[in-house]
Amino acid sequence: VSSESSPQAEAVSVAGKQLYKTLQVTTEENITTIRLNRPEKKNAISIVMYNEIMQALEEAAKDESTITVITGTGDYYCSGNDINNFTMIPPEGIEKMAKDSAQLLKNFVLHFIDFPKPLIAVVNGPAVGVSVTLLGLFDAVYATDRATFHTPFSQLGQSPEGCSSYIFPKLMGSAKATEVLSFNKKLTAREACDLGLVTEIFPDASFQKEIWLRLRGCAKLPKMSLVYAKQLSRGPEKEKLYAVNIQECERLEERWLSEDCRNAIAKFFTSLYST
Amino acid sequence: VSSESSPQAEAVSVAGKQLYKTLQVTTEENITTIRLNRPEKKNAISIVMYNEIMQALEEAAKDESTITVITGTGDYYCSGNDINNFTMIPPEGIEKMAKDSAQLLKNFVLHFIDFPKPLIAVVNGPAVGVSVTLLGLFDAVYATDRATFHTPFSQLGQSPEGCSSYIFPKLMGSAKATEVLSFNKKLTAREACDLGLVTEIFPDASFQKEIWLRLRGCAKLPKMSLVYAKQLSRGPEKEKLYAVNIQECERLEERWLSEDCRNAIAKFFTSLYST
Amino acid sequence: VSSESSPQAEAVSVAGKQLYKTLQVTTEENITTIRLNRPEKKNAISIVMYNEIMQALEEAAKDESTITVITGTGDYYCSGNDINNFTMIPPEGIEKMAKDSAQLLKNFVLHFIDFPKPLIAVVNGPAVGVSVTLLGLFDAVYATDRATFHTPFSQLGQSPEGCSSYIFPKLMGSAKATEVLSFNKKLTAREACDLGLVTEIFPDASFQKEIWLRLRGCAKLPKMSLVYAKQLSRGPEKEKLYAVNIQECERLEERWLSEDCRNAIAKFFTSLYST
Repeated sequence: VSSESSPQAEAVSVAGKQLYKTLQVTTEENITTIRLNRPEKKNAISIVMYNEIMQALEEAAKDESTITVITGTGDYYCSGNDINNFTMIPPEGIEKMAKDSAQLLKNFVLHFIDFPKPLIAVVNGPAVGVSVTLLGLFDAVYATDRATFHTPFSQLGQSPEGCSSYIFPKLMGSAKATEVLSFNKKLTAREACDLGLVTEIFPDASFQKEIWLRLRGCAKLPKMSLVYAKQLSRGPEKEKLYAVNIQECERLEERWLSEDCRNAIAKFFTSLYST
Repeated sequence: VSSESSPQAEAVSVAGKQLYKTLQVTTEENITTIRLNRPEKKNAISIVMYNEIMQALEEAAKDESTITVITGTGDYYCSGNDINNFTMIPPEGIEKMAKDSAQLLKNFVLHFIDFPKPLIAVVNGPAVGVSVTLLGLFDAVYATDRATFHTPFSQLGQSPEGCSSYIFPKLMGSAKATEVLSFNKKLTAREACDLGLVTEIFPDASFQKEIWLRLRGCAKLPKMSLVYAKQLSRGPEKEKLYAVNIQECERLEERWLSEDCRNAIAKFFTSLYST
Repeated sequence: VSSESSPQAEAVSVAGKQLYKTLQVTTEENITTIRLNRPEKKNAISIVMYNEIMQALEEAAKDESTITVITGTGDYYCSGNDINNFTMIPPEGIEKMAKDSAQLLKNFVLHFIDFPKPLIAVVNGPAVGVSVTLLGLFDAVYATDRATFHTPFSQLGQSPEGCSSYIFPKLMGSAKATEVLSFNKKLTAREACDLGLVTEIFPDASFQKEIWLRLRGCAKLPKMSLVYAKQLSRGPEKEKLYAVNIQECERLEERWLSEDCRNAIAKFFTSLYST
């Protein structure tokens, strides 16, 4: 986790803007961009990054921008929860770690449920775990054709989060959602687009050019019309999303303490450090 | 709006049938067809037409027909709300106009939520605005491959109606619905079909022949089986649809009085009359 | 219905396992397979089979297996409700038969709503009626490309069951669901897959080989992760599914006594025995 205090990450902060260790945040032409900025860790979400994303979303909600974009630096969009988070066991023991992690995740997902403006993912490469499940709470998802979408929860003895246990079956039906959420199927960009998880895919070579052009156009639209359209859609779903989020996090707290999960994580680290 | 009293529109009325200024309504072979009949206005929905459609739906609900079809005369299916409706400002001022328009729209959409028989759209050409959003309340939508589907709400500073803020994300997911409802994406017939908004598309050359043959077959099925199948599906959704409709109309009342919307409409008329 | 007591059906029962007349039930490599075993009747569901499927599901829910599979013996997956069920009129008359049938169906569907493990359909051939509508309550559906999916309810004066009046529109939208549930459209395997009813289709020649290989892999995953993932998704839907099931069965009880339905069934038997 040494990269979190690397000069590279802080160098991009500008006057008047919050300094982030794991993110690059900019606001230009009505677009606030939150860039996950741990490329050497494939933008895995450390505990610091969870907290910084929440803070960046709170600020983006209040700033003058019309739309907010999340994207990644480097080849990966995001490799999901940083598995090193599981190694930081507090003196109170593993139960405390599971409890704190569930609390952090619940609060993190809540920031996506409640985000008031159009929230757009620019998926610049592979997406894993929580960075995939959260996409169901975005308003639009644009992806390079190089992107893949993978949620290997059951392989790790875990269970779905990010409201995906509710949103994915609603979006694609149980027959497709089970393969993704339970049977560890890795989706190509095309498959994710056909299932409705992704709005549109672009050839990798022209992705960055095309997508920012497109988004700058969207960001010129009357802001309140976009905000209200989102409010109308999201509003009636909120109570259900809150409830789902709580249930998913309670379940994960139990999972993290289970034999299934602990064995899977131990196996992961063994394979990592034995080579 | 002179066309509304044209002899052409009234000529088709028959004895015992309601006389309509903006519609042609017929009942044949168990099919009641409500034809939007202002081709010179691309079947834009004037205030008279809103009221006449409601009356025609009330009568179709009670008549002997098995299914009810809505289609358009001429090249367009429907160009949406007649923007001239915004020019008829009552003596009480623009607030009164916004209030009355919201009330009219709410009542109009209610007639689609509550319509008890299979309601089928025969989309004979481009569809715009409320004529697109309402399709989510139809039971089947057949379209010529020449049709397009466009809801440029945010461009006009407005917000979605026709329960589309609820039905479109439910149907196609947020990732696709945002492009349609917020980012003004115009869908081709093929795209609308892939997103589930349209049941099936037909080559324009054979559309009229094929679709009426098909519908005459459907209209021979046991009527009550069709009515009850719709009742089972629609019933549990009604309370939610009522609530969404109210929220959308309240929001539009606010939108119509907003700077965003008034500027956009003024710009529209300026461009219209300055050429 | 003579086949129900044929030696062929009982021959496959093994020691310690429930003896079934209409099913073959096995548990191997963490998979419990419930095989509909009346190939000479295209696996039509007789009253005995309804009861045996419920019992097999109750046992599968409790056994050590990780996933449960339903499939059919022979060329058909299942031809739906055995129409001979309608000929067994009790002394109390047809009203009693309709009441008992509705009660049986309600209880049967309830077993699918409440089934706690991943429930997977291996659709080895054509599927008709209730065997299609129930697929919405499965977690994954794999089909040979030879399969078709047909729910000709309205043709028989009936109405949808198996919670399909709720699940099908939710899955594919009203525009597609009406064709299937009300207009008797027979779906190809490809169409059913595109609509989200089927997870994936396979060439018939390699179907059996590929699918069991795949399923054996799924059955090795941590069991509780799969169970909890299903619980998270199904849990918040259960109350709605219970209510839909009750309404559908009440409606069918009325339908079975209607002229529409009785005429259609009489016509069916006339055509059957007049050739």
